[in-house]
Amino acid sequence: WRSRKKREILQYVAVKWTFVFLVGILTAIAALGINTAVENIAGVKFLLTVKFMESNRFVWAFLVYAGFNVMLVMSAALLCVYIGPSAAGSGIPEVKAYLNGVDTPNIFSIKTLVVKILGSIGSVAGGLIVGKEGPLVHVGSCIASLLGQGGSVKYGLTCKWLRYLKNDRDRRDLVTCGAAAGVAAAFRAPVGGVLFALEEVTSWWRGPLLWRAFFTTAVVAVVIRTGIAWCKQGHCGMAGEGGLIIFDVSGVQESYGLRELSSVAVSGVLGGVLGSLFNQINAKIIVWSGTWLKKKGKFAKIIQAILIALVTSICSFGLPFLAKCQPCPDHLTIPGEKACPTYGRAGNFKNFHCPDGSYNDLAGLFFNTNEDSVRNLFSKGTNGEFQFSSLFVYLTSAYSLALLTYGTAVPSGLFVPAILCGATYGRIVGMIMGSFYVNGHMDEGVYALLGAASFLGGSMRMTVSLCIILLELTNNLLLLPLIMLVLLISKTVGDAFNDGLYSLHVHIKGIPFLEAHPPQFMSHLTARDAITRPLIWFSKVERVGTIAEVLRSTNHHAFPVVDDDVECSGKPVFFGLVLRSHLLVLLKKKEFAKNRLSRSEVQSSRVTAAEFAKPGSGKGLTISDIELTVVEEEMFLDLTGIANTSPYTVVHTMSLAKAYTLFRQLGLRHLCVMPRASEGQPIIGLLTRHDFMSAYLLNLYPHLRQNNYTKIQAFTSKRDEQL
Amino acid sequence: WRSRKKREILQYVAVKWTFVFLVGILTAIAALGINTAVENIAGVKFLLTVKFMESNRFVWAFLVYAGFNVMLVMSAALLCVYIGPSAAGSGIPEVKAYLNGVDTPNIFSIKTLVVKILGSIGSVAGGLIVGKEGPLVHVGSCIASLLGQGGSVKYGLTCKWLRYLKNDRDRRDLVTCGAAAGVAAAFRAPVGGVLFALEEVTSWWRGPLLWRAFFTTAVVAVVIRTGIAWCKQGHCGMAGEGGLIIFDVSGVQESYGLRELSSVAVSGVLGGVLGSLFNQINAKIIVWSGTWLKKKGKFAKIIQAILIALVTSICSFGLPFLAKCQPCPDHLTIPGEKACPTYGRAGNFKNFHCPDGSYNDLAGLFFNTNEDSVRNLFSKGTNGEFQFSSLFVYLTSAYSLALLTYGTAVPSGLFVPAILCGATYGRIVGMIMGSFYVNGHMDEGVYALLGAASFLGGSMRMTVSLCIILLELTNNLLLLPLIMLVLLISKTVGDAFNDGLYSLHVHIKGIPFLEAHPPQFMSHLTARDAITRPLIWFSKVERVGTIAEVLRSTNHHAFPVVDDDVECSGKPVFFGLVLRSHLLVLLKKKEFAKNRLSRSEVQSSRVTAAEFAKPGSGKGLTISDIELTVVEEEMFLDLTGIANTSPYTVVHTMSLAKAYTLFRQLGLRHLCVMPRASEGQPIIGLLTRHDFMSAYLLNLYPHLRQNNYTKIQAFTSKRDEQL
Repeated sequence: WRSRKKREILQYVAVKWTFVFLVGILTAIAALGINTAVENIAGVKFLLTVKFMESNRFVWAFLVYAGFNVMLVMSAALLCVYIGPSAAGSGIPEVKAYLNGVDTPNIFSIKTLVVKILGSIGSVAGGLIVGKEGPLVHVGSCIASLLGQGGSVKYGLTCKWLRYLKNDRDRRDLVTCGAAAGVAAAFRAPVGGVLFALEEVTSWWRGPLLWRAFFTTAVVAVVIRTGIAWCKQGHCGMAGEGGLIIFDVSGVQESYGLRELSSVAVSGVLGGVLGSLFNQINAKIIVWSGTWLKKKGKFAKIIQAILIALVTSICSFGLPFLAKCQPCPDHLTIPGEKACPTYGRAGNFKNFHCPDGSYNDLAGLFFNTNEDSVRNLFSKGTNGEFQFSSLFVYLTSAYSLALLTYGTAVPSGLFVPAILCGATYGRIVGMIMGSFYVNGHMDEGVYALLGAASFLGGSMRMTVSLCIILLELTNNLLLLPLIMLVLLISKTVGDAFNDGLYSLHVHIKGIPFLEAHPPQFMSHLTARDAITRPLIWFSKVERVGTIAEVLRSTNHHAFPVVDDDVECSGKPVFFGLVLRSHLLVLLKKKEFAKNRLSRSEVQSSRVTAAEFAKPGSGKGLTISDIELTVVEEEMFLDLTGIANTSPYTVVHTMSLAKAYTLFRQLGLRHLCVMPRASEGQPIIGLLTRHDFMSAYLLNLYPHLRQNNYTKIQAFTSKRDEQL
Repeated sequence: WRSRKKREILQYVAVKWTFVFLVGILTAIAALGINTAVENIAGVKFLLTVKFMESNRFVWAFLVYAGFNVMLVMSAALLCVYIGPSAAGSGIPEVKAYLNGVDTPNIFSIKTLVVKILGSIGSVAGGLIVGKEGPLVHVGSCIASLLGQGGSVKYGLTCKWLRYLKNDRDRRDLVTCGAAAGVAAAFRAPVGGVLFALEEVTSWWRGPLLWRAFFTTAVVAVVIRTGIAWCKQGHCGMAGEGGLIIFDVSGVQESYGLRELSSVAVSGVLGGVLGSLFNQINAKIIVWSGTWLKKKGKFAKIIQAILIALVTSICSFGLPFLAKCQPCPDHLTIPGEKACPTYGRAGNFKNFHCPDGSYNDLAGLFFNTNEDSVRNLFSKGTNGEFQFSSLFVYLTSAYSLALLTYGTAVPSGLFVPAILCGATYGRIVGMIMGSFYVNGHMDEGVYALLGAASFLGGSMRMTVSLCIILLELTNNLLLLPLIMLVLLISKTVGDAFNDGLYSLHVHIKGIPFLEAHPPQFMSHLTARDAITRPLIWFSKVERVGTIAEVLRSTNHHAFPVVDDDVECSGKPVFFGLVLRSHLLVLLKKKEFAKNRLSRSEVQSSRVTAAEFAKPGSGKGLTISDIELTVVEEEMFLDLTGIANTSPYTVVHTMSLAKAYTLFRQLGLRHLCVMPRASEGQPIIGLLTRHDFMSAYLLNLYPHLRQNNYTKIQAFTSKRDEQL
């Protein structure tokens, strides 16, 4: 890095920008592809079902409908379980964890990418109450990470230019841009995407990244716009009319007073309560079903997915029969037409089983793709379209189904379910308001939007990015204060009960996530208190056999090197830190010295920096790859050249909270804990990420458990016991 | 902090949110006030001048016009020079420096606030080529900082609740919100304000701040909107029609192809070149005039301001006479009316000295407030309104005047001058394009907008925030890709020549600013290399006289404490770090021990944490406030209780770049440099902010100077020699 020439820096910059450009384009294409596939498959499904219904063969209709759904969900589940297990769920917690410094294997592999794309087509087109927004974030990050591997040695796709990306920082930056691109593609919200990445996904943010992420999302926006224009010309089958959610209320120039604000506050409180309840129950279900499914094996996961698809089909096909048929609104009835104008396949007024001239309001919600239901709920100028009872039935079943579905073995995003539930009770609030005040209350579509905002805020606990995403969806700056108010209230209410959904899932998955600030109890501990493992150290010139033995018997990633040349310095002194990966490279090279003193003759110059570069997503070198002869084991390896002689250190009496801050802010992987002024030992221990985990520390020091930690603690420890 | 109860945390949160709410409201009111005052004063000025011109008394007209301008600018300069010198300039570099950890005295005092508000009214209404946007950022930050003082003991405005704000972090957060509010108020761009604060102003960004800043800017947006609606009802005199810049091109649904993109690229390159040239010349002028004015005293500064006001008046009154009168465009001429329809006072078509039925295009730019000129340049559907020659004359003179004006002793923002210059050459580019392609080229107003973007990007080097601000100004998402492209090009071109304007000004002002990343040459130095000052340390129990003497003779802010109880530990050992402010508190309390051994009997328990809390903006305690008798000087003070026994440390062989990262990321003020494993000395030295300054280090190690540092280096060192 430091010795780079001007030309190399230019190459590096060119590579970086080309890659974020590619990330933008590819993510947008993936989004368009998923969207087109979903619209077409669901379109065929609904057309066939409706055909049977028109001839009153309801059983056949149901069989076709449920059959489609089960097949689609089953294929998604099969893909997820047998090919890409990392593709299940929304993927946002995993992306968050990666950007926090946790390298989970396989989350960004090609398999995962393919399964994620195909699986979300299956689960969304299969009528489950899931969205494709969360998965798109994962897809964007996957694309970014795959591009950022610096080529593949395995497939011979390597290039001199790509070597610049062989480091963690650039890969992380690229993945951040990918996540932003995903959100931008999902909601057509370039600014919202950047802010989402900034607020929810990343752990370290660097100034230049802002601009690069924004560039990516702008590319996404341009490509999506072009793609949609192309689809409108009829190139995409049934896609085009529906599609990516856009709720345009730019015309609704509402003025609002105290009574609107109070109803907004009601929505906010509802969102906070229902959202946090959702988090709580969903987490419980996942922990419970996780342990249960672990016993039963992979097949049970597929059965679970199929059962959920079946239940969803029964609800969405059966429940609309309960609704009372409504006459078509007068101003919309076209003389001579039999059915209400449904604005094509996706319109508000579904005929379903009702007689001509009337519509089934519940079918407009259930018997539609999720995005079209959202569009129905958000539609303006349709006050009175829905009945109380229908909205209530829909709310209850969508809420329960979303609870069951999120966390099964299919790709599933939570944005759309949250918007569905929120918009439904938002409309209910709006209808109640409308029944009190006949004149001058806001459009029910606006209430639906505010309800959606409140549920999102109450469950995900994001604020600015949600606000911007909703603004970009609605394209109406006048609603900004209302959206902010509702988000503020729902987040505050939700925070009083539990953590945000993504945080909960990070905990449930057991990911060692480092929050930005240390938990309070850490200020009662010192750095030494966190050290429990025995320390293993090497001498400056160490026997090869010892090194190999240690590498075999432990899985530590770093080892202190101690200068124990006692004759010279009086007592052993801490020299530096060597990484396992560097030791492996040296062992592989086999340039050893015959005895302890003949060091510095061999090596050092022969190993170039490139050989130490971090490899791509592959497994890399392991100790079992290296064969050592007995003679070699008795030789010596000089570690002075590869040791980091000035790692970041803290004194062992430092408060653990302070050490945490250092560790987290600088993104360290190892932190050396030193004694106060050479009290015998040269070094006291190494702190790693796991040593900073609350669960681990509170197990060591149970008296520090406090009320606020008990909840999540009881939760995860219960899971640990069950496993 | 750690021992807070639940109720106290609630109070703390309530105080924080109330304060950001207040910051939003007060900043918005300040912005509305400045705007109303400027519009009214400038309105009276133009009305009077036009009255004289209509009766052909041009000399009188000029005298009135110039007289107004000189008086206004002179009062602004008088205020700035004699009452609030910190109010001169835009204030953004100072706010940036404060948020980087540099406490400059007086930049946030009440005097500065008042002078900044009144002064920017004077300088903007006085016709200078300056804006009020930069000053508004300073005003917002000032308001925030004053609120964040935690009350004032001097004026008896204190309260138990406010004690929570007595720490640096909360004050900085509040000032960040204030800066965001300033931008939001200046451009009516709530999202842009937040991103401006994030991208340009802050050095450390914390997640929760995003939401709070956004809340502040939303409050600003609501208040500004309400205020403008109120003004439209005629409560604000002549304000209302003009006012805060809003350029609405939402109707211009342009499609663009390759030839538009190429012209955009031309604008971008022009912006980069002209912008960086602007920075370079402006910096030279400021350095030169700074040294010159230092010799001449305060009065010279006022003369300078008056001269600039006079030159500006001559240009803006005289140059329009050179322009050829243009006939009013046909479709706009109203039969029976004499003059072209000028849409009131601020319209496009100024009659000036021209005969009836024609207009003077140059007067539409010169003989207007700056904001109205911007609006004229941005106006859509006015292709062909301006002549080449007029635009060229205006560009040259506005560019030169802006160069002269920015940096004089009046509050002056750079946004508006940059927009004026950029929009002018943007229109020129647009006209040239228009002459090549008769049909289908974009509106000249759009070209003007892109030109403005390019100049802003070329001179200030911001990207995302500018992009969003311009988007919020134009309210047209379709222009996003074009604006991004132009910003990308102009920033890249500009960066090839020099630093952004605010960075240059930070350098020129000699502010010890810490960039996010260490400069390259630091990796060739070790931490020890940066230590040059002799180290002064205290014993764990130190003689009072020695402490007082050291505090008097140095101005260090922290001192190491060494455990030199050699009998016990063998050799002196580093114990901790004490702060000057804490020593002063202890000296003030005068609870000393009679001799070295009777420590720990007195004190420690009697001093509460509140007494060590950081005071507000006042001077605080100094050593000269403390009187010590001879007896007291011979007594001892136990420092074990107040020393920070585990400060962040680095080993002296650590690369300076790595130490820099630690220092900067954690926002430290002192970094202890330790020896490798007790080689005699207990501590090698303390690194402070000044030790990390490039200029200082490169003076010590001149061989590290490289091409890229030479430029700025030669620059600042030349200034240092001259001073």
